[in-house]
Amino acid sequence: MITRLSELFVRTLREDPADAEVPSHRWLVRAGYIRRAAPGIYSWLPLGYKVLRNIEQIVREEMDAIGSQEAHLPALLPAEPYQASGRWIDYGPNIFRLKDRKGGDYLLGPTHEEMFTLLVKDLYSSYKDLPLHLYHIQTKYRDEARPRAGLLRCREFVMKDSYSFDIDDIGLQKSYDAHRDAYIKIFNRLGFEYVIVHAMSGAMGGSASEEFLAVAENGEDTFVASPGGYAANVEAVHVVPPEPVPYDNAPAAHVHDTPDTPTIETLVNHANAQVPREDRAWTAADTLKNVVVMVRKLDGTREPLAIGLPGDREVDLKRLAATLEPDEAEAFTEEDFADHPSLAKGYIGPGVLGENNASGIRYLTDPRVVEGTRWVTGADQPGRHVFDLVCGRDFTADGVIDVAEVKEGDPAPDGSGPLRLARGIEMGHIFQLGRKYAEALGLKVLDSNGKLVTVTMGSYGVGVSRAVAVVAEGTCDEKGLCWPREIAPYDVQILATGKGEAVLNAATDLARELDDAGIKVLLDDRKASPGVKFADAEIMGMPTSVVVGRGLAEGLVELRDRKTGEIENIPLDEAVGRIIAVVRGRPSID
Amino acid sequence: MITRLSELFVRTLREDPADAEVPSHRWLVRAGYIRRAAPGIYSWLPLGYKVLRNIEQIVREEMDAIGSQEAHLPALLPAEPYQASGRWIDYGPNIFRLKDRKGGDYLLGPTHEEMFTLLVKDLYSSYKDLPLHLYHIQTKYRDEARPRAGLLRCREFVMKDSYSFDIDDIGLQKSYDAHRDAYIKIFNRLGFEYVIVHAMSGAMGGSASEEFLAVAENGEDTFVASPGGYAANVEAVHVVPPEPVPYDNAPAAHVHDTPDTPTIETLVNHANAQVPREDRAWTAADTLKNVVVMVRKLDGTREPLAIGLPGDREVDLKRLAATLEPDEAEAFTEEDFADHPSLAKGYIGPGVLGENNASGIRYLTDPRVVEGTRWVTGADQPGRHVFDLVCGRDFTADGVIDVAEVKEGDPAPDGSGPLRLARGIEMGHIFQLGRKYAEALGLKVLDSNGKLVTVTMGSYGVGVSRAVAVVAEGTCDEKGLCWPREIAPYDVQILATGKGEAVLNAATDLARELDDAGIKVLLDDRKASPGVKFADAEIMGMPTSVVVGRGLAEGLVELRDRKTGEIENIPLDEAVGRIIAVVRGRPSID
Repeated sequence: MITRLSELFVRTLREDPADAEVPSHRWLVRAGYIRRAAPGIYSWLPLGYKVLRNIEQIVREEMDAIGSQEAHLPALLPAEPYQASGRWIDYGPNIFRLKDRKGGDYLLGPTHEEMFTLLVKDLYSSYKDLPLHLYHIQTKYRDEARPRAGLLRCREFVMKDSYSFDIDDIGLQKSYDAHRDAYIKIFNRLGFEYVIVHAMSGAMGGSASEEFLAVAENGEDTFVASPGGYAANVEAVHVVPPEPVPYDNAPAAHVHDTPDTPTIETLVNHANAQVPREDRAWTAADTLKNVVVMVRKLDGTREPLAIGLPGDREVDLKRLAATLEPDEAEAFTEEDFADHPSLAKGYIGPGVLGENNASGIRYLTDPRVVEGTRWVTGADQPGRHVFDLVCGRDFTADGVIDVAEVKEGDPAPDGSGPLRLARGIEMGHIFQLGRKYAEALGLKVLDSNGKLVTVTMGSYGVGVSRAVAVVAEGTCDEKGLCWPREIAPYDVQILATGKGEAVLNAATDLARELDDAGIKVLLDDRKASPGVKFADAEIMGMPTSVVVGRGLAEGLVELRDRKTGEIENIPLDEAVGRIIAVVRGRPSID
Repeated sequence: MITRLSELFVRTLREDPADAEVPSHRWLVRAGYIRRAAPGIYSWLPLGYKVLRNIEQIVREEMDAIGSQEAHLPALLPAEPYQASGRWIDYGPNIFRLKDRKGGDYLLGPTHEEMFTLLVKDLYSSYKDLPLHLYHIQTKYRDEARPRAGLLRCREFVMKDSYSFDIDDIGLQKSYDAHRDAYIKIFNRLGFEYVIVHAMSGAMGGSASEEFLAVAENGEDTFVASPGGYAANVEAVHVVPPEPVPYDNAPAAHVHDTPDTPTIETLVNHANAQVPREDRAWTAADTLKNVVVMVRKLDGTREPLAIGLPGDREVDLKRLAATLEPDEAEAFTEEDFADHPSLAKGYIGPGVLGENNASGIRYLTDPRVVEGTRWVTGADQPGRHVFDLVCGRDFTADGVIDVAEVKEGDPAPDGSGPLRLARGIEMGHIFQLGRKYAEALGLKVLDSNGKLVTVTMGSYGVGVSRAVAVVAEGTCDEKGLCWPREIAPYDVQILATGKGEAVLNAATDLARELDDAGIKVLLDDRKASPGVKFADAEIMGMPTSVVVGRGLAEGLVELRDRKTGEIENIPLDEAVGRIIAVVRGRPSID
C-alpha cells in the first residue's frame, strides 16, 4: 500500500524544539517521528513507530536465531517477587510504585528477572528442561531523576530483555556467549559504531557483566580502551594497587604552617619552596586529598564518608555513584561540617578519620594509597599540613574505594597499554546473574542425580526504543535524518514536483509499480513547492528519493541518495528496475 | 524454523486451574498459553503470544485497509489531560493512579481519547488535514473491581483503539461507518459469532455507540434482539412509555390492611380476594414496587434514591449501574432505614417520596408509570397498602428511570417484534464521541471559510487480548483448544510416535520440507508415549496434526483434523503436498 504524504500524520518543524539537547532528539521531533507526552515519555507518530518496529524485528530475528523463545510478560507487577529479591528496596526512587484499589502494592516493571524466574519455576522442574532462553520485547518503566535527550533516557521505553536458565556455570557461560554473539549481530545490523566493555552489575547483581556502548560524543557513559584490547566502562575500571613501598628511611611526619595554599597547585609550590623533599620535588600525586561526602541510605539515613585519594585526581562522581549504589552520595554541607567540628575544612587529614579517630568518620582510600606511600596532607588544623605521613606507619584507612577519575593515558589494569577515554551510550547489557534470583525465589530443578539444585541465570537487555535515537544520532547530518535501509520507515520517497497532472500521474504510476514489487513507498503528492518537498525529504531521511518533475518532459527522473547526496538522472522507463536494485542493495548497472 | 516441542517453553496441565470459571481460561492455562501473574494480570507464554500477535495482525490489516494510521502512545500518562476532560474523576476507582518521584500525578491509560486529541492539536490546524484516522495496538490498564475469567476481564490487557477526526457530523458518520465495516471484517476473520447492538456510551461520552458482542453463554453482557432487526445491550434498551390512561372513572385511593403479604404474589392474591378491582383481576403488573438504593457519588457522599417500578419486574442492577455511572448504587442498609424513619420497610409508597414529601428522597419511576395508571402500592405504614393510587392524580415522581429488567418477549422499542435475550462478551465498541474531548482540550481547526471550528471525533476499540479468549471460548471442545487456521500458533503439529530413529527422522524430514514451504510446524520430538502426544496435541489445538508412527512401515502417515476429528491415512510421499493444500485452504485431492 502506497502511503501518501498528503494523508500521512506528520508535520515537519522548521525550528528545533526548545528542550532538544542532542541531534537525534532534535531531528526525530522535527521530522515528525516522535512527540513528547510528558517528561521522559514519548508518543510514536506513524513514521517513528515504523522505525521502532523495524528495529524490534531485527532484535527478534537474532534472538530467535539462537533459540530464544518470545514470551510477553506484564508491565504492571505485584511487589512480592521484587520484595523477595530485595529490589523493591534496592531500586529506591527509581521505580514507579502504585497501589491497586484494594491497597495491594504494585510496580511498573523496570526489568523482569523475578517474573521470568517465577514463570520457569512454575513450569519446569528438571535439568532435562535446561538450558532455556526466553525473551520479550516490552514496555519498561523507570522513574529517572533526570530524563533527558529525547529517547536516550526515558521513563517509559521499549526494551528487549532475555533470560537464560542453566543447570551449571558452564551452561551459563555458553548461554552468555550465545547472547553476546547475537548482540554483536544485532548491533552490526543496526549499523552504529559500538564497543563491548566490562561493566558494573549494579542493582542487577551477579558476578560479571558487559555493556555494548554506542560510541557517541554526547553519551552519558564514559569508557576506556587500551591498544591491547582492554575496554571497560569507567565505572568498572579497577585500579591495580602498586606494590607496597619500603619506608624504613622515611622521615618522621612533621607539621608545617601552609598559609595561602587553597589549591593542590599552591600547596605543592609551597611545599617545594618551604619543605623540600629530600630526594625529588613534591608533585600533586604526593598530596593526599581527603574528600568528605554524605551517603544517603535507602532508608533515608545519612552517614558521612571520607575518601582519600592522590591530589592529582578528582573523585569521579559516576564511579562513586556506581560504587555506592543503591545508596547515593550527597554533598557534605556547611551544616554537616558544623555537626562534625573535628573536621577542619580544607585541611582534613587521616588524623581525625576512621573508627579510632576523633570524628569517627569511615575512611576509605584510593587503591594507590598502599603501605609505605608518603603523603602531604591536611593536619586537621586550619592553615596547616602534615608532611611525610606514611601509610601503614602513621595512618591506616578503613578500606579501599576505587572512585578516582580515570585519566587518558592511565595504564590498563591488565597491562595492555595506556587507556584512551571516550563516551558512549549504553545499548545493551549482558549479565551473568548466577543464582541471586533463583535463590531468592526458590527456582530449583532436579539434576541428573535426582538432587535439587538451584538454577543459574543470565539476563540480557537491548534498549530498543533507545536504539531508534542512537541509529538516528549516528546517521543524521546537518539536513536531517538519514536512515540505514533496514531501519527506514520507507524504502523510497517519491517527490512529485511541478504542476500539472502529468507529473503527479507519473509519480503515482511509479509508486504503484514499486509498491507492487514490494518496495515501501512514501509518495509526496502534496500541493507544496519543490523546495518544501526537498527539505522534508531530507529531514525525514528515507535512504532514496526519486524526483518526478522537470525532467519528465525528456523522460527522466532524478534518483537521490540521501546519504551521499548523489543525484543521478535516469530514464523513467528504467526507474523501477534501478530503484529495486538500489533498495535491495545490488550494485546499480551503469 | 521448526519448533521442537522438546524445547518449547510449555507445560500442559492434566488438571483445571482452581480459579478457572470459563472454558477459555481453563484451556489457555492447561495448554500452556498463559499464566496468571497477579489478579487480572497474565503472562503470555510463547504459544499464547503467537496467537495474540496473529490477532493483532488481523486487526492491523483491517485498520490499515481503511486508511487508519498506526501510531503508538504511552501507557503512563500525565493526569492533566484527563483532568481537563473530567475522566480523572469520572473513572473513579477504575483507573490506576500513581505519583512520580516529584509528586506529579499520573495514570495508566484506560483508553486514549485525550492523548490523541492533544497529538492532533499539536500537529494539525486545518480542515484540509481532515478526515484523519489514527490507531494503536497497546497495553491498557483498568483497576477492575472483579477481574475474572482469565483474559476476559483483565486489569492489564491489549486493546486496539482508533480515533477519527472530522470537520463535521457528516464526516464523523462516514468515519464511523468505515470503522463499523472494518470491525465486521475483523470479527468475521476471527470467526466467532457476534451481534452488533446499540450500547450505552458511559464514561466515554458522546451521542451514539454500538457494541460488537461475541455471543457466549458465560458473557457478562446481556443483549436483546428482535425478529425485525433491533438489537441492543440491555443497558441501552429504552422502554417506550405507553400512552397516558384516562382516569376520570378511577375510584379514589383507599388504604387497606394487607397482613401476611411479604411478596408481590401474596399481595396480589390478597388483593384479588379482599379488595377486588372492578373490571378485572389485579396482576403483579398492577403493583408498584418502590426500591430504595443508596447512590455513592464520586466524591464519596451517599444519597438515597427511590425507584418505582411495576411489581412484575426487578431492578436490573447492570442497567442501574450503567444509568448511574460514574456514580454507583449501593444497598440501602438497616442503618440507612434508621436514618430515614418515614420509610416503612416493605411498605414504601410514593406518599413519602420526592421533594415535597416526608422523606425528601428523590423518586424516579419506570417509563411504564405514566399518567392515569392505577397502582397497588405501599401505604407507608407497616402491614398496609394503598389501592387505586393514580399516577398524576395521587402522586407525581421526580422523573423517569429506565432500569427495570427487560424480559424475554417484551416488545422491541422500535416495534420490530418481541425481544429475545442472550448473553455476550463485549469485543468491540464504537463511539460517535462528537466534540466532548475536542472541546475540553481545545482541538480546533480552520474551516474552509477561515473560521476556527471544533473537530468532531469518533473512537473505536477492539479487545485484542480478550479476543484470544473469545476465539478460544468459541472453538474449544471437551478435549482442549481448537484454533482457526489464521489464528493458530502453528499450522501443523507433527507427532513422532513410536520408538526408533526412523520415526523421528521421517517426522523431522517432513517438518523440514513443510518449513521450507513456509508452513509453521511444531514437531513433537519428545521422548513421551503416543498417548501423551495425542492428548497434548488435542489440548494445544493446532488445526492439523500429522502422526508419523506405526504406519510408517507401510509408507503411511496419519492426517488428523482437530476440529472434525477426522483421521486419514495418506502416503508419506504425498504428505507435503496434501498438508500444504489443507493449510492453505484448498480442497484436498481425493
